[in-house]
Amino acid sequence: MDYTYGPGRNHLFVPGPVNIPEPVIRAMNRNNEDYRSPAVPALTKTLLEDVKKIFKTTSGTPFLIPTTGTGAWESALTNTLSPGDRIVSFLIGQFSLLWIDQQQRLKFNVDVIESEWGQGANLDILASKLAMDKTHTIKAICIVHNETATGVTNNLAAVRKLLDEFSHPALFLVDGVSSICALDFRMDEWRVDVALTGSQKALSLPTGMGIVCASPKALDASKSAKSVRVFFDWNDYLKFYKLGTYWPYTPSIQLLYGLRAALDLIFEEGLDSVIARHNRLGKATRLAVEAWGLKNCTQKEEWFSDTVTAVIVPPYIDSAEIVRRAWKRYNLSLGLGLNKVAGKVFRIGHLGNLNELQLLACLSGVEMILKDVGYPVKLGSGVAAAAAYLQNTIPLIPSRI
Amino acid sequence: MDYTYGPGRNHLFVPGPVNIPEPVIRAMNRNNEDYRSPAVPALTKTLLEDVKKIFKTTSGTPFLIPTTGTGAWESALTNTLSPGDRIVSFLIGQFSLLWIDQQQRLKFNVDVIESEWGQGANLDILASKLAMDKTHTIKAICIVHNETATGVTNNLAAVRKLLDEFSHPALFLVDGVSSICALDFRMDEWRVDVALTGSQKALSLPTGMGIVCASPKALDASKSAKSVRVFFDWNDYLKFYKLGTYWPYTPSIQLLYGLRAALDLIFEEGLDSVIARHNRLGKATRLAVEAWGLKNCTQKEEWFSDTVTAVIVPPYIDSAEIVRRAWKRYNLSLGLGLNKVAGKVFRIGHLGNLNELQLLACLSGVEMILKDVGYPVKLGSGVAAAAAYLQNTIPLIPSRI
Amino acid sequence: MDYTYGPGRNHLFVPGPVNIPEPVIRAMNRNNEDYRSPAVPALTKTLLEDVKKIFKTTSGTPFLIPTTGTGAWESALTNTLSPGDRIVSFLIGQFSLLWIDQQQRLKFNVDVIESEWGQGANLDILASKLAMDKTHTIKAICIVHNETATGVTNNLAAVRKLLDEFSHPALFLVDGVSSICALDFRMDEWRVDVALTGSQKALSLPTGMGIVCASPKALDASKSAKSVRVFFDWNDYLKFYKLGTYWPYTPSIQLLYGLRAALDLIFEEGLDSVIARHNRLGKATRLAVEAWGLKNCTQKEEWFSDTVTAVIVPPYIDSAEIVRRAWKRYNLSLGLGLNKVAGKVFRIGHLGNLNELQLLACLSGVEMILKDVGYPVKLGSGVAAAAAYLQNTIPLIPSRI
Amino acid sequence: MDYTYGPGRNHLFVPGPVNIPEPVIRAMNRNNEDYRSPAVPALTKTLLEDVKKIFKTTSGTPFLIPTTGTGAWESALTNTLSPGDRIVSFLIGQFSLLWIDQQQRLKFNVDVIESEWGQGANLDILASKLAMDKTHTIKAICIVHNETATGVTNNLAAVRKLLDEFSHPALFLVDGVSSICALDFRMDEWRVDVALTGSQKALSLPTGMGIVCASPKALDASKSAKSVRVFFDWNDYLKFYKLGTYWPYTPSIQLLYGLRAALDLIFEEGLDSVIARHNRLGKATRLAVEAWGLKNCTQKEEWFSDTVTAVIVPPYIDSAEIVRRAWKRYNLSLGLGLNKVAGKVFRIGHLGNLNELQLLACLSGVEMILKDVGYPVKLGSGVAAAAAYLQNTIPLIPSRI
Repeated sequence: MDYTYGPGRNHLFVPGPVNIPEPVIRAMNRNNEDYRSPAVPALTKTLLEDVKKIFKTTSGTPFLIPTTGTGAWESALTNTLSPGDRIVSFLIGQFSLLWIDQQQRLKFNVDVIESEWGQGANLDILASKLAMDKTHTIKAICIVHNETATGVTNNLAAVRKLLDEFSHPALFLVDGVSSICALDFRMDEWRVDVALTGSQKALSLPTGMGIVCASPKALDASKSAKSVRVFFDWNDYLKFYKLGTYWPYTPSIQLLYGLRAALDLIFEEGLDSVIARHNRLGKATRLAVEAWGLKNCTQKEEWFSDTVTAVIVPPYIDSAEIVRRAWKRYNLSLGLGLNKVAGKVFRIGHLGNLNELQLLACLSGVEMILKDVGYPVKLGSGVAAAAAYLQNTIPLIPSRI
Repeated sequence: MDYTYGPGRNHLFVPGPVNIPEPVIRAMNRNNEDYRSPAVPALTKTLLEDVKKIFKTTSGTPFLIPTTGTGAWESALTNTLSPGDRIVSFLIGQFSLLWIDQQQRLKFNVDVIESEWGQGANLDILASKLAMDKTHTIKAICIVHNETATGVTNNLAAVRKLLDEFSHPALFLVDGVSSICALDFRMDEWRVDVALTGSQKALSLPTGMGIVCASPKALDASKSAKSVRVFFDWNDYLKFYKLGTYWPYTPSIQLLYGLRAALDLIFEEGLDSVIARHNRLGKATRLAVEAWGLKNCTQKEEWFSDTVTAVIVPPYIDSAEIVRRAWKRYNLSLGLGLNKVAGKVFRIGHLGNLNELQLLACLSGVEMILKDVGYPVKLGSGVAAAAAYLQNTIPLIPSRI
Repeated sequence: MDYTYGPGRNHLFVPGPVNIPEPVIRAMNRNNEDYRSPAVPALTKTLLEDVKKIFKTTSGTPFLIPTTGTGAWESALTNTLSPGDRIVSFLIGQFSLLWIDQQQRLKFNVDVIESEWGQGANLDILASKLAMDKTHTIKAICIVHNETATGVTNNLAAVRKLLDEFSHPALFLVDGVSSICALDFRMDEWRVDVALTGSQKALSLPTGMGIVCASPKALDASKSAKSVRVFFDWNDYLKFYKLGTYWPYTPSIQLLYGLRAALDLIFEEGLDSVIARHNRLGKATRLAVEAWGLKNCTQKEEWFSDTVTAVIVPPYIDSAEIVRRAWKRYNLSLGLGLNKVAGKVFRIGHLGNLNELQLLACLSGVEMILKDVGYPVKLGSGVAAAAAYLQNTIPLIPSRI
Repeated sequence: MDYTYGPGRNHLFVPGPVNIPEPVIRAMNRNNEDYRSPAVPALTKTLLEDVKKIFKTTSGTPFLIPTTGTGAWESALTNTLSPGDRIVSFLIGQFSLLWIDQQQRLKFNVDVIESEWGQGANLDILASKLAMDKTHTIKAICIVHNETATGVTNNLAAVRKLLDEFSHPALFLVDGVSSICALDFRMDEWRVDVALTGSQKALSLPTGMGIVCASPKALDASKSAKSVRVFFDWNDYLKFYKLGTYWPYTPSIQLLYGLRAALDLIFEEGLDSVIARHNRLGKATRLAVEAWGLKNCTQKEEWFSDTVTAVIVPPYIDSAEIVRRAWKRYNLSLGLGLNKVAGKVFRIGHLGNLNELQLLACLSGVEMILKDVGYPVKLGSGVAAAAAYLQNTIPLIPSRI
């Protein structure tokens, strides 16, 4: 079954799915259960309460949907919008592109604001669109918080600020797939209307749970939204929430217990410490890239992502070969360049339950691979740059002081 | 976390989710992996090939969708039909009701053929509808193979026979959620166009994978079907099948390995032996019910289900109290009566990776509970009736001869 | 690897190793750890404190030795006695025989008090030996609390009473392998000097930990005992206890976490509730045996064991065939008859993390097997007798009320 | 339970217990089984046959004893020797010291050949002792193949050569605890009489199985050896080997399946590839130590160990502080300096199921810690030196080519 076995651990540095911590693997190592017994609703109740914390919301209503991020997107859109609705959506990389594709196929009228890959959302254009939209034809702004393909983090506070400036009532829908639980995300403060993530990203669970959180305004919208939906319909969930049985259909028992364990670990570390750790990992990676003499796909510091770094390779190298070699020789899993940047970048995912020495293993591996493929890197240079920063910043592990 | 702990094993006899065998639990006890490495497509390829065997199809195309049975339903409908399409659907219990509800909400024109709960699909009415439908306004027949709420198995061969008799081209869509891998199901022979099941049923996996299989005719239909869909769109899968990377979005690594192990166990036992085992379990249960002097919710033998038995309790007993007591006192999980039969029946699920002695534990528990709640059962009577049958029919375990 | 796979759960009714509860399997599902980090001593400290409770001792000193019950025996003997020491030992079945064999090979002067297999320790002979032993040549009394081969429980309180009556200073060494955590055992009250058990018995862990508890008097004896020992030497443990690092050599990290989980479950249920549960299981089994018209190998009620029942088969039946058939046809694991009772008895182990419905599965299986092998049992008779008793006595599960 | 949780994986670099690979963790994730069923002997048979391969023996007889390395030592000695027997034993570090302590306490007449810690066995003295021993009073030579405290590998071929030169019939007993499955070990070629290891070392299992292999000559010796033993007695095993039931007492079911998986992984990689990998890991570590300007505790290249490196710290640094800091800040587990080298060295274990990037994570961590404690290391220097070597030597993973 494991016919691609290699000795030692796989070094998993794709930007999802990410490493699952042992306590979570343990929590999920279990038989099925009757989800209609009193035990599962009692567990679910704690999950719905606690999962709000990772969105930094008290007023939001979360949904734990047996789906992926793609399904979570669909849930966000179809519950709040009607076919033909005008939405503004930012195209800055492969995942925003896929979301836009979904938006179009779901029959929304998508007003795309495109940026060069490697840049963040163009908020100037948004501003002008909002300014012109006196009649509020724009029903929603859709934005990917962190574009996983290019390692670009968008400024959500700035989006909110613009909406407020123009007193625009558009819904604010955010893909937080590679940000929530890793980057600073403030649903209530930024008045995000729908935020969503997938279990296999910074929560460090297996794939299979789309986590969607809706503001009261989004819930209101769901009452009149005309998009056809059943599986993704929030109202079915809400009906069962009221009954106290919570599930309109069968959840994964294992993922529920896994989520409980994952949240417990995050709260034990402290969400802000988790975010600070991701910042350390991101900075360390960027310092290594710089030391190698390579360029970050992200064009400006303001967009640097703390969860994924897309590294541009010299034109004489095929970045896919780096990824293949990483896997074949070093048991290291890196992310491919996608679509427009295929062959041009490889990606280092540094999110989820990950510590600094794990990252340094990856960076040391990348150095060797760069040399393998003919790039004249100085071995140790990236690790040294990263370590110099990390050695000054890694905190003691609180439980071990 | 396990705050409803009781000593010993939970006896899980709800009709899903069902017991996961140890080898499957083991196979899923793993970290995440990069689903874009060569390993996952190689695994997926074997799964897509082998999963067809449980549908008894060679011409079908399977989809392993990260969803539940409800999502699998939606996938079957939206990929093959367009809003407004007339479909004939049988209402015989809670799950067929829920599917019909979905069909209506997805904007199909649902022509419902209702039976009394406890009866199978009324094929006479189907026949007359087909007879009258000279212009082929009926685009699909939707039928639940095994209605989990009442323990009724419908005769799919007879449905196919009717369609053929009238040379009717309607698509034949089958919910096999509580049948496939347990009851005799023959996709190719019966020319079923879409069949579907959920991982947590007879496959004995955790919840989270909707397994849908489409005939060539269904695939054809998907090219012109106008129902809006993205997450559930087969065409996205087909595109990635062609690329050999298989996944339009992230699958659950754990469920893929789990499915591999589950299929291996089923093939080791032999699919026909698995079906024969379910037949033994079903018959044994029905003999026990008879011995207790209780009535099966299923009104005729031709509809008896080998995967779930709904037992009617005397009017002076609340069947929900039986289920509560089972859990509270005996660590036994039984199924509640749903909707029209709430309070009137309790259900014994006997599907999945389950052997005869496990069933006898359940039956002995039910006897004690019946006595607990005031029904004058003779303790041991049901077990004796079941055992008399089983002792004559259980085969030796082939690997142990 | 699992080349004797059979569908469904194995019904494990040998008197050890017994079923491991899921929370314990989970707790052990982990990588190795540095046992010299602060974490392992901190864990060990809680274990040493809490494991005393299962011996009902506050003054005893426990040792968690990486060994089996046989090693725990050796530890008890070699730490407290010197070669040539006279010890009185009761031979009542295969396990007491094996212990006596060990005692002899360890060069003690073993004064064996033999009983017919099926009877308990002959305390009259002990009394006369004690009476005659004015000079206290007897250094220790060795007794198996529960003889696993015949299902005979000895009366330890009576042994203590005799020792007191004669004011005899002999050490009181008890094999509690199939009793501790299942039968009433009171180390302090009965002034047992060394008691021991194995992890795979009523504690419901994997094999691999011999748990030995020594009274202050036994610890004193260990200072002068001349038996050669190193691996089993308590003094090496005591040295490391003082240092606070606890381990003279590497423990199994997995078993330590497993023991923590096992103790937590036992304390959650309540040790006295655990013992009461075993009493229910024992009585139910004996009622079934009686209903089948078979005889218990244990000759008198006072010796009935609540953890294992040895059932005598009619002379025309080979009990080994029952055990073989149980495994081959019913996925049921029963205990063989050993040595003098080989072919004559089969054994039902009913200890550890086990509930009543699990037992009834076993009993229903035994009934079918008895019929298979030609014994004219009335199917359901044993289950009915057991259930009649159990239905009156099973308590509600406290966490579910 | 995991009250010293830190984010990400623990980097486990003590020289045992070592990392358990996922397939082995999975194989052990199981309930108990009846070890007297046909399944366990069938499994055991394959294990006994295959475990001989890791000793490179065809004539040896292996014993899988539920114990630790300390117990395996005791098994080797007591089965082959009688109290008072003269044995020659080399003292070169803490583990040879502990073995000698055991030898003395087991009442052998131990002729100790001591070397400075950091040096290998002094074979010149052995030669002179053998030369003088015309009457063959020396019954055994006891040697630790790899002294885990100092990282010194002894030359076993040279020992055999000396014995042959003097035609000396002494038994050749080898502690292979931190060598077998990692260093080149040739039982048959070197005519080793007893070799042993522990499951938690290079086999990468949990602690709990002492694996002892006896030559025909050692088995012969066991017939006349007068040392008192029962638990460790090979003859009890041999009796059950003949019966085909294999086990004189209960084995750990989990460790048996774990050993099966561990051997499968080793054979898949190829034992010689495993040894070559350890050589790479050892050399890379030594190159890093050199680059840091630190000294290896091992004084000459001929003794360099490929499984553990003991690094001497400058006199102004307490090596225990390095180990504490590694754990507290970097989630890195290093080995303490023991006894004579306490405070003076820290140890990096690089054995078992471990790959090169894992090692580089450790080395990068050590660099940061060295800086933390005031040693003026150049960050990245050790990693660079190691990587320069590794990048030239790591082979492709055969299953992924």
